[in-house]
Amino acid sequence: MAELLSSLIEPKSIAVIGASENSNKIGGRPIFYMQRHGYKGNIYPINPSRSEIQGLRGYPSLAALPEVPELALVIVSGDAAVAAVDECAERGVKSAIVIASGFGETGEQGRKVQQGMAERARARGMRIVGPNTQGLANFGNGAIASFSTMFIEVPALDGPIAVASQSGGMSSVTYGLCRRRGLGVRHVHATGNEADVTVADIAWTVAHDPGVKLLLLYLETIANPDLLAQTAEYARERDLPIVAVKAGRSASGQKAASSHTGALANEDRVVDAFFRHHGIWRVRDAQAMALAADAYLKGWRPHGRRLVVISNSGASCVMAADASEDYGLPLAELSTETRRDVAAKLPGFATSTNPIDVTAALLQNSAMFGDVLPIVAKDPAADLFFLHVPVAGAGYDVERFARDSAQFAADTGKPLVVSAWQESIAQVFRAAGLVVFENEAEALSVFAQVASHAELMRRARPKWPEGAPVDVPAGSQRFFNEADSLALLAKAGVPVVPYRLCKSAAEARAAFQALGAPVAVKACSVDVPHKSEHGLVSLGVTSAEDAARLFDSQWEKLSAMKAARDGVIVAAMKKGRRELMVGARVDPVFGPIVLVGDGGKYVEALKDFAILIPPFDAEEVRKALARLRIAPIIDGVRGEPALDVDAVAKVAIGVGRLIRAAKGKIASIDLNPVMVGAAGEGAIVVDALIERG
Amino acid sequence: MAELLSSLIEPKSIAVIGASENSNKIGGRPIFYMQRHGYKGNIYPINPSRSEIQGLRGYPSLAALPEVPELALVIVSGDAAVAAVDECAERGVKSAIVIASGFGETGEQGRKVQQGMAERARARGMRIVGPNTQGLANFGNGAIASFSTMFIEVPALDGPIAVASQSGGMSSVTYGLCRRRGLGVRHVHATGNEADVTVADIAWTVAHDPGVKLLLLYLETIANPDLLAQTAEYARERDLPIVAVKAGRSASGQKAASSHTGALANEDRVVDAFFRHHGIWRVRDAQAMALAADAYLKGWRPHGRRLVVISNSGASCVMAADASEDYGLPLAELSTETRRDVAAKLPGFATSTNPIDVTAALLQNSAMFGDVLPIVAKDPAADLFFLHVPVAGAGYDVERFARDSAQFAADTGKPLVVSAWQESIAQVFRAAGLVVFENEAEALSVFAQVASHAELMRRARPKWPEGAPVDVPAGSQRFFNEADSLALLAKAGVPVVPYRLCKSAAEARAAFQALGAPVAVKACSVDVPHKSEHGLVSLGVTSAEDAARLFDSQWEKLSAMKAARDGVIVAAMKKGRRELMVGARVDPVFGPIVLVGDGGKYVEALKDFAILIPPFDAEEVRKALARLRIAPIIDGVRGEPALDVDAVAKVAIGVGRLIRAAKGKIASIDLNPVMVGAAGEGAIVVDALIERG
Repeated sequence: MAELLSSLIEPKSIAVIGASENSNKIGGRPIFYMQRHGYKGNIYPINPSRSEIQGLRGYPSLAALPEVPELALVIVSGDAAVAAVDECAERGVKSAIVIASGFGETGEQGRKVQQGMAERARARGMRIVGPNTQGLANFGNGAIASFSTMFIEVPALDGPIAVASQSGGMSSVTYGLCRRRGLGVRHVHATGNEADVTVADIAWTVAHDPGVKLLLLYLETIANPDLLAQTAEYARERDLPIVAVKAGRSASGQKAASSHTGALANEDRVVDAFFRHHGIWRVRDAQAMALAADAYLKGWRPHGRRLVVISNSGASCVMAADASEDYGLPLAELSTETRRDVAAKLPGFATSTNPIDVTAALLQNSAMFGDVLPIVAKDPAADLFFLHVPVAGAGYDVERFARDSAQFAADTGKPLVVSAWQESIAQVFRAAGLVVFENEAEALSVFAQVASHAELMRRARPKWPEGAPVDVPAGSQRFFNEADSLALLAKAGVPVVPYRLCKSAAEARAAFQALGAPVAVKACSVDVPHKSEHGLVSLGVTSAEDAARLFDSQWEKLSAMKAARDGVIVAAMKKGRRELMVGARVDPVFGPIVLVGDGGKYVEALKDFAILIPPFDAEEVRKALARLRIAPIIDGVRGEPALDVDAVAKVAIGVGRLIRAAKGKIASIDLNPVMVGAAGEGAIVVDALIERG
Repeated sequence: MAELLSSLIEPKSIAVIGASENSNKIGGRPIFYMQRHGYKGNIYPINPSRSEIQGLRGYPSLAALPEVPELALVIVSGDAAVAAVDECAERGVKSAIVIASGFGETGEQGRKVQQGMAERARARGMRIVGPNTQGLANFGNGAIASFSTMFIEVPALDGPIAVASQSGGMSSVTYGLCRRRGLGVRHVHATGNEADVTVADIAWTVAHDPGVKLLLLYLETIANPDLLAQTAEYARERDLPIVAVKAGRSASGQKAASSHTGALANEDRVVDAFFRHHGIWRVRDAQAMALAADAYLKGWRPHGRRLVVISNSGASCVMAADASEDYGLPLAELSTETRRDVAAKLPGFATSTNPIDVTAALLQNSAMFGDVLPIVAKDPAADLFFLHVPVAGAGYDVERFARDSAQFAADTGKPLVVSAWQESIAQVFRAAGLVVFENEAEALSVFAQVASHAELMRRARPKWPEGAPVDVPAGSQRFFNEADSLALLAKAGVPVVPYRLCKSAAEARAAFQALGAPVAVKACSVDVPHKSEHGLVSLGVTSAEDAARLFDSQWEKLSAMKAARDGVIVAAMKKGRRELMVGARVDPVFGPIVLVGDGGKYVEALKDFAILIPPFDAEEVRKALARLRIAPIIDGVRGEPALDVDAVAKVAIGVGRLIRAAKGKIASIDLNPVMVGAAGEGAIVVDALIERG
């Protein structure tokens, strides 16, 4: 169990080193905030030149305090900051927050100073947040060790949202955007350069606050994937959704992130896979986090995605129908009875099929929404409800629409969202407790998000038994030769093509006879990992004579290349219906990962592969394959049978277990092609290249 | 030249048939609006039971009016509406707007009534807008023949925007969203069921209003592509950007559109190609139209896409860098001098490379933006400027930021956008005349849009000379046999594989000798268009004997199948580096279209093709190929040479000219594969199937 950093988020006492009387200054604002928000612990302003600060007693030094504070907020900068941190650690302060910039984000020299400071603190058992941070703020208890101006700009309100962010700016923006939507935010924490405490540490800690119902993260690097994974697991258990922005998605972004917080680059597709694996939902920006917050806080965890659309605008029905396909929320097929009952409530020219267009007749009959909603709710085909009101105002009884809709939501417990771009209209619906969006794209993207996220959180996480460690033969070469690669795979239970490693033409002839025509003849040398580029692969060999002759010529070629002559492989030729690729490698941050995708020589160019984080099950492989561009081919098109996805899953799981069990001794595995047959026909590895770790 | 419908948008007199004293009723609101917005023409309220209506003289009937009105607004519904339209047409009214619903959108019966009404009107020279419409509104002259409540909800302001929409609701929403952004809107026109006048007619007319600087369209069907194309051409000539929402993108949306306005479905990928071809920019919804309006109205038509980002938040720099890659706006590489001069204005820990992070030090030095912008503007590497201010408020001199930014924009004329999600901050920038967005995604998507749209509008539109009509041999079969297909293509100048159509084994033998090994031997029968499915294709034939033997067996098989024995094709075997596909067909709405894409049997499953609208040039084909998923392969990866894109373009243009010249006698052309070599090696058609029209 990781440590809960309660000294950071619920400290009993806080010293402010470099305190200021001026509440607009960095050293003054936290004191101002803590007094305003009713912090109950002891605040110790430290400033050698003032005996009173913002009505509190001022102290000249840490040494002069009546107790060792639990938390120190270090406002002073440069060398003074380092000295203050060192002194805090010596005196037994539990945690320090270092505001000053000019450390790791400026380059190598700054990084060294930062690292030294953090190491000395850790050695004495003190945790550090920052440097280069805006600080931490807990509106649940008033411990506002942060200088963010945003708490002035947008008044605080304690509530169920927690924000943990590397960036101070982004923590403020996320806070502000949630508040603008009327939502309460308890935690607003920024970790800055993360010399010690990371976003994962904060996330782990606030996930244990039972008042937190939604956890929002902003990351520029995932420094501590294990703790983040552990947090996600804990959060899933207590039904706490985590939504994350991970910036530095692109090469340009990663370069900028390195200047910002000295963040190390993560490979972005692996980040996606990591989040998916752990049930963390990734979005693009703070606006997207705030947009969906309301829906999460309603507690919606839908099990179905079938949508009902009701609108007073025909065009909005059309656009909602389009959006329903964009976001994979199929329009519910209402029963004949439902449609009949709906039609009875509408004028003749209105549309009683879903999407239901009540038309501008809503002007004459304000009861329409209230009449239609309960009828549709009775239809078991409907999971999600979307009321689209793009036009309203004078002449419309919006109060009634809102009341009827809220009543419906309360009576049925069904997820209902409203779209109304006119602020005056939106306000009426919001006042009735409804979730309101600007248009169909916003509304349905959020429905799709909460539905998909709920499914992701519910998904079973398989455990792979530890298993015996794999005996990876020692060697100084970067790659194993193909025979050794195939042998390692076979030992791990991965189906590989039948083959013989031959040391003479006679052995090749015998191998041909044993395996049967046609065979492949391939030179095997640890020095020639990419043998087809050297003309050392012959396919479709149909006679023992040819096999023997090819042995001789390849053997000679290896000799001419001065390459190790490990042998010549004679292998059965296996054809599948499609050549796929299965691979694995050890990511420097996330550890072993597995890749499944389309095979062939254009894997890197076309990037049609999906990434899986071990441990995973066949279902997860199936879902990964369904995300590929070639998914229709895998499913079977033009009368072709579906491919044997279970067999591919078996290969992927075998490869994943092998690279995990190798514990760093294998750096990567590249199986391309894996010949995959129709469902039931299996999958078999015909070419393998394993790289040492 | 199409007709300008000035009687609709600048009528000298308007009769309101079914006028009401109550300005909240449909029959009263237009009169109220016209009086409020200073309509200078004559308004004739018609209502048999009132002699005065809203202070105007009321008339019992059309016959009682002192003049024949130019425009009639028909408020009455059902049979009365039809009767009123007929009477208008008889009396020489130039145009009528029919508000009533219950026509084409309700089914076949309604469609017939609607069509009859429109035909009778057209026969007498009267144009009809609607039925099932909200009407037309011109705030340039106060001719508001519309009952939209939105003009009450959001006060009108005449301005440079024109909205033409099938849907009344969407015209109101687009109007309202533009107004919410502070922009003036002159035209708000809805066409409803389009019994006669379409969005294209309205677009054509308002494009001729010199006060219109941005034209926004909402379409559920493109009923009149020729006029829309003509409008787009005219708009390009006068530098008028057209932005369109085309709903009914999906099957569900098309179904909903059919219930809404009786709209016929368009194939969505063809719609995309049509818009691209004509320089119309397509967006998803009204919000997206309003979002970019401001930037268009600034007159920005950028020739470059290199972006400079300046922010007081490091995280925003990271996110803007990510977004710059999302939207294809590369970060400008600033010169050493620029970076040096920028650095001199910033604190040491700030970042002087692009994105430029001035950090929270902006709090201490309000001049930073104003200091940095002019330095960067001098660098020729920078085309577009983005000021990202996610955090501001108390303590920040936002007035100064805005003043400095506006001064920069005025001095340099360079496109500058600001992001500030806090309304109080955004207002200050807006008041200084700047374009403000909510975050980096909004800002950069709009920059990308105006840059790409400007490029699209500038692109040269080639003309294809009419050319001689193609002599398409008559026949009753759906498909041509392959020999005839190849012959048609060869005549059109498309390079086809050398081949002989053989009628005997001896001819096959002779063909082999003439063409040289290897050859393909393929049965040729008008009855067997998909011959490989019947085992009637043999590839890689390497001897004259084999060719003769295959002739015999295929000839016999055709006989056994009771298929016409048109011959057996012996064709040279041509290999390219990649097999692509070129196709063409006649779209029922848009006419001839051409497809280029990846070849093979999975064209439909993988959909990796692009659509081109004739006439087009090689450059357009190159751009289309660059949009394919296999674009990296076409460009050359892993040391492979690039493919001969010029040769593909030649095939595509040849095919496009052939299907155009066939004037309906050819329904489709399917060339798959086209063997494409490396640049300079050419492309050659090896299989062809042409369908009669």
